[in-house]
Amino acid sequence: MASHILIHNGTVLTMETDRPVIENGWVMIQNHRIQQLGTGALPGVAGHGRVIDAGGGIIMPGLVNAHIHAPMSMFRGLADDLPLDVWLNAHIFPAEARQVNPDSVARWTRHSCHEMLLSGTTTCCDGYFFETEVARAMATTGIRAVAAQGVIDFPAPGVPDPQENVRHAIDHVTAVKELGSRITPSIFCHSAYTCSSKTLVAGKDAARDAGVLFQIHAAEVKHEPEMIKENNGESVIQYLDRLGILDKQTLVAHGVWVDETDLTILARCNTPVVHCPESNMKLASGIAPVPKMLGAGVQVALGTDGCASNNDLDMFSEMGTAAKLHKVACMDPCVMDAKTCLTMATMGGARALGMDREIGSLAPGKKADIIVVDTAKPHMQPMHNPFSGLVYSAKSSDVSWVIVDGIVRVAGGKLA
Amino acid sequence: MASHILIHNGTVLTMETDRPVIENGWVMIQNHRIQQLGTGALPGVAGHGRVIDAGGGIIMPGLVNAHIHAPMSMFRGLADDLPLDVWLNAHIFPAEARQVNPDSVARWTRHSCHEMLLSGTTTCCDGYFFETEVARAMATTGIRAVAAQGVIDFPAPGVPDPQENVRHAIDHVTAVKELGSRITPSIFCHSAYTCSSKTLVAGKDAARDAGVLFQIHAAEVKHEPEMIKENNGESVIQYLDRLGILDKQTLVAHGVWVDETDLTILARCNTPVVHCPESNMKLASGIAPVPKMLGAGVQVALGTDGCASNNDLDMFSEMGTAAKLHKVACMDPCVMDAKTCLTMATMGGARALGMDREIGSLAPGKKADIIVVDTAKPHMQPMHNPFSGLVYSAKSSDVSWVIVDGIVRVAGGKLA
Repeated sequence: MASHILIHNGTVLTMETDRPVIENGWVMIQNHRIQQLGTGALPGVAGHGRVIDAGGGIIMPGLVNAHIHAPMSMFRGLADDLPLDVWLNAHIFPAEARQVNPDSVARWTRHSCHEMLLSGTTTCCDGYFFETEVARAMATTGIRAVAAQGVIDFPAPGVPDPQENVRHAIDHVTAVKELGSRITPSIFCHSAYTCSSKTLVAGKDAARDAGVLFQIHAAEVKHEPEMIKENNGESVIQYLDRLGILDKQTLVAHGVWVDETDLTILARCNTPVVHCPESNMKLASGIAPVPKMLGAGVQVALGTDGCASNNDLDMFSEMGTAAKLHKVACMDPCVMDAKTCLTMATMGGARALGMDREIGSLAPGKKADIIVVDTAKPHMQPMHNPFSGLVYSAKSSDVSWVIVDGIVRVAGGKLA
Repeated sequence: MASHILIHNGTVLTMETDRPVIENGWVMIQNHRIQQLGTGALPGVAGHGRVIDAGGGIIMPGLVNAHIHAPMSMFRGLADDLPLDVWLNAHIFPAEARQVNPDSVARWTRHSCHEMLLSGTTTCCDGYFFETEVARAMATTGIRAVAAQGVIDFPAPGVPDPQENVRHAIDHVTAVKELGSRITPSIFCHSAYTCSSKTLVAGKDAARDAGVLFQIHAAEVKHEPEMIKENNGESVIQYLDRLGILDKQTLVAHGVWVDETDLTILARCNTPVVHCPESNMKLASGIAPVPKMLGAGVQVALGTDGCASNNDLDMFSEMGTAAKLHKVACMDPCVMDAKTCLTMATMGGARALGMDREIGSLAPGKKADIIVVDTAKPHMQPMHNPFSGLVYSAKSSDVSWVIVDGIVRVAGGKLA
């Protein structure tokens, strides 16, 4: 028997091109999917169905956080305001060696998923070690996720022998495929300076063979090209292109230090980039040229990065920062308008993960990944424009309801 | 009979130099002032006293928002992502002409004060028109405020004849002095490009005669020197210095386009600057050289600016943005550490407003302007460092208790 949920009494932001805003709207969910959207008179709900009153707020797609390291919430605030090498070598790496194990990874992954659900993120894209444990922990929380096993040419948590790193990732992909459709496996080669060309190619080949997303940190820091032993004076993007790694199923995290040639390559290869403005600011990595990326036709998603470098998983804050950072960086208040930023955090993320047929907007037949944002508090009034309201004024604590895959995960601002 | 409030079971951040953190601490309030701070065993509370359990959170001074235009919350989200001249001339100025009157100013000032109190701001520094109405509205909410009548050489709301602008401000100062000690009057000459040198000098003379703070927007936009008719190729700061306007009772809002000569002048004159990073980013004004200001010995406070250009009054968000923005602008993750940002938002603001003997830190004898920040939610755990937690992870919605002048204004996250 079909299970229905009707969400009503709100402004529906569909994030669809042809009907972006439905005033006084409603959304009907049947089982895991959106059945219908409308305005005015409400459709009937079968006896056992649930009715959610959005209280005049905003009904919109759940947010997609396209770059996280979920277990790293255990290191939130452990070491801030430090030079990058001190932060990594004196704090994060030793803490990882000490604290990262299957149990801690599972515990802090659940913690991060709770943080994400409470703040309106319904899909996240993760990469870390012990990732099969991460994926299992994510599955228990109800979030939708891409879970990538990390690959690096050094001994790593759970992978003492680097020779086994790609094989380990392949085993992870196989294991996660059994977890069900909400959790999708992926392979994450850490970077071009911590993986040899052989590892990068083997990792990408394995991802391609399995039909899953391949991820890599690239062009995050200015001196990255010099850190890559095997490149010939190329940019990182040129190097990855030469290795045959860039296609639409490769996700580039950061892309801060990219020039116009790099952008042309990324656009030609249909390779999406995840923009992580707050992490890039906090670590002083630089400012990714996102308006130029969008102008060059590169798909851009938005991510928070891990809690060790942000220090939260708050996509509302990330949208607001993205909007404001590029305005001042370009000295142009018109770039990165509110709708562009909201698109990055919804459809942009869905496209980057290859999930845009299923999530990222509200349309009949799509998965029911839906959030309600309360607009009653003083900082959300008056509401002249819902896109502005969400990007420039909303806090993640305004998220009152979160539904993933047709299941209520946050009700009245609390975990269900 | 003395009224006592005891706040206990929290980490006390005093923001005092000699004892910045008290673990497992408590604060005893007697009437309007802090009587005592301590750790461990609790002092007795007289029968009619109130005991507030901080629930293991952070007990700290209320935040000081040193630059706002409170009534402008009525224009929140009205016009975003536009060129500055279109934003001002096609949207804000016409909306002001249409909507700004004594009633709307009072209504939206109360609204803004509620937003500020709920988000942990206990003192604000305002400038607008119909400011006596603003001050009266503020007084009803319990917030501590500096309320400055705007002075501009054009017809303005409530001041149709610009010839009367300074006289009007003087009348305002007289009227507000009757409102009681929580609301302090001030005079705000809009800028050096909208006020003649004669108006600037008259405004400053009036403020000096009354012993009140003089405020001015200065060096906010790059081409400001060219907009000032009467300067001789000077910077704005040099021009204001030549007019004799800069001293410790003049507060410069923004200070984005200042060079080292300007910083030397500001330091010599003990003139504080209010840094408004989010407004400067959103309007694409530029990035104020705050680390250089602090290095030159300039006092720096933090402000949100008005809701038309931010679009909120959230000092937690502003602290986090300040910390991250300057790291990336300087390409140095060590600048603007969490404690520096928290100091700007507390003692920095108190000093800028000439109130540092009364507010800005927790010490016996100081006014009881105190907030409690809940640290139980997932995004605040683990708590390795309270300064990092407050600046990089806390949301203003984590503020659970707000006390101003010894009176509870927010209880359990709701207006009392």
